[in-house]
Amino acid sequence: MTAPQQLALITHRPDGTAVGFIEADVTRAQLSVLDAGPVRGDGIFETFSVASGRPQSLELHLERFAASAGALDLPEPTLAVWRDAIFALSARLADVEEAWLKIVLTRGVEVGPAATGSAPEGTPPTGWVYAAPSPDFTAARTEGVRVVILDRGLPSDVAERSPWLLAGAKTLSYAVNRAAQREAGRRDADDVVFVSSDGLLLEGPTSTLIVRQGSRLVTPPATLGILAGTTQADLFEAAPGWGLHTAVEPLRASDLMGADAAWLVSSVRHAAPIREIDGVALGVDPELSHRMNAFLRARRA
Amino acid sequence: MTAPQQLALITHRPDGTAVGFIEADVTRAQLSVLDAGPVRGDGIFETFSVASGRPQSLELHLERFAASAGALDLPEPTLAVWRDAIFALSARLADVEEAWLKIVLTRGVEVGPAATGSAPEGTPPTGWVYAAPSPDFTAARTEGVRVVILDRGLPSDVAERSPWLLAGAKTLSYAVNRAAQREAGRRDADDVVFVSSDGLLLEGPTSTLIVRQGSRLVTPPATLGILAGTTQADLFEAAPGWGLHTAVEPLRASDLMGADAAWLVSSVRHAAPIREIDGVALGVDPELSHRMNAFLRARRA
Repeated sequence: MTAPQQLALITHRPDGTAVGFIEADVTRAQLSVLDAGPVRGDGIFETFSVASGRPQSLELHLERFAASAGALDLPEPTLAVWRDAIFALSARLADVEEAWLKIVLTRGVEVGPAATGSAPEGTPPTGWVYAAPSPDFTAARTEGVRVVILDRGLPSDVAERSPWLLAGAKTLSYAVNRAAQREAGRRDADDVVFVSSDGLLLEGPTSTLIVRQGSRLVTPPATLGILAGTTQADLFEAAPGWGLHTAVEPLRASDLMGADAAWLVSSVRHAAPIREIDGVALGVDPELSHRMNAFLRARRA
Repeated sequence: MTAPQQLALITHRPDGTAVGFIEADVTRAQLSVLDAGPVRGDGIFETFSVASGRPQSLELHLERFAASAGALDLPEPTLAVWRDAIFALSARLADVEEAWLKIVLTRGVEVGPAATGSAPEGTPPTGWVYAAPSPDFTAARTEGVRVVILDRGLPSDVAERSPWLLAGAKTLSYAVNRAAQREAGRRDADDVVFVSSDGLLLEGPTSTLIVRQGSRLVTPPATLGILAGTTQADLFEAAPGWGLHTAVEPLRASDLMGADAAWLVSSVRHAAPIREIDGVALGVDPELSHRMNAFLRARRA
């Protein structure tokens, strides 16, 4: 069963307000080479799962989308219109157990070279929603992933000290995240845990870190300039029901090495247990991994 | 006289080799919403000036383009094809005294969400060349620009220590560069000089820093994880003819504050004298600024 890919283009007024959406053909070109998305990574996105046609954790993602727009001085997303488009595309994937959906907002079509190239006042942003069936993540969810710890180069107080570095905003400028994943591949690993220049564990390039210490689940604080994890937030809400406490605390590499178990959690792959760190084995917790993934698959919007 | 914008799409084989180009309509959509450029800023670019139809410093830009491709593990650009496309579009702008041209190469169309989303083997990259008349930069070149010094957050040894952070590669992930320019605007300035977390001056978001100390022109070394400036390189070749020495040396904020003059130099705006740093006036050198800009406008390919 291959459900087709779905695409909707959001229609914006010059003042940045979204007024509707148009379904479009994903096999055709839809973007200008002058758009600030393609030429500068100057925009924001969210990716989330759609379970049998139901977008999961939608409001957490929309909230973060709006926060990212604020961090980049983009027009405030007109969430009612985005919701309409998201539900329309999700409904088309009702027969698909696990699908994924991406929403993107860019600064719109630029005029002029770099030094003058910001979109002039009155240029509408560009927005779209894309959805498609998810690949099979069974191996990552059950067997786990091997990670390397890579320096993110930035200090842990970067968000407060240097807001123009956009730490914690989900921008389209992901070249470094991709380069880090390729570096992991070169080191015979599957994924990455970033660490701040002062030694605090941060997040994966596309995921949030959770470690288990006895009956406690711990994740690093978003104040370190990382994304507030939506999947982590859902898991932490469920954890007390599983007899687990939760804590948001700074973690160091030694905390990960010494954890009873650890996961990279994300909206589409869900909970991937970490089974190796820089070549050293870490025990996985198959029971809790299974419980986490079953819970995440069953979430309602 | 408004010469039209020009666009050429580079045709790639699945193995990444470019085989030719097709001129295309810039007013129409040309890119997929699944392209790694728009969705991840995962690609590279160069921008340079075209003077009366002659691309300027072309080989320096192509050399840097190829180096950026290497840093991002992109296929090596087939430079002969890129040159053909560049000369074809440049020729159309022969009547334009100052035009600008941008070349872009992305990782191509992705399949799947983030955790699996790298373009599979055999996916051709996406490439294009865009050219248009330049805006009028007379004010920046003669009156100068006001800059603020902003922390880039990264240490000065980042390029050597953490190559996955892509410092010194000209990637499409420019959201931070744009955010820094907006921060400058909020501080009533025009542009930015980035500084490393350990206090060494780096570059502007879209330019290279040059300071004059007596009869010496000094620029920071590219080993700090900054772009090797093509405009700076051309100016340093010309400088001995103007009775000036040149040096590539680390600089601190105090060196900029205490300079006899300073410039942000770039391929299209050329030499913009710095007339104010964090609200404190700096003397401009109108004669040398004029000489620099006249030289840059007159350069051959």
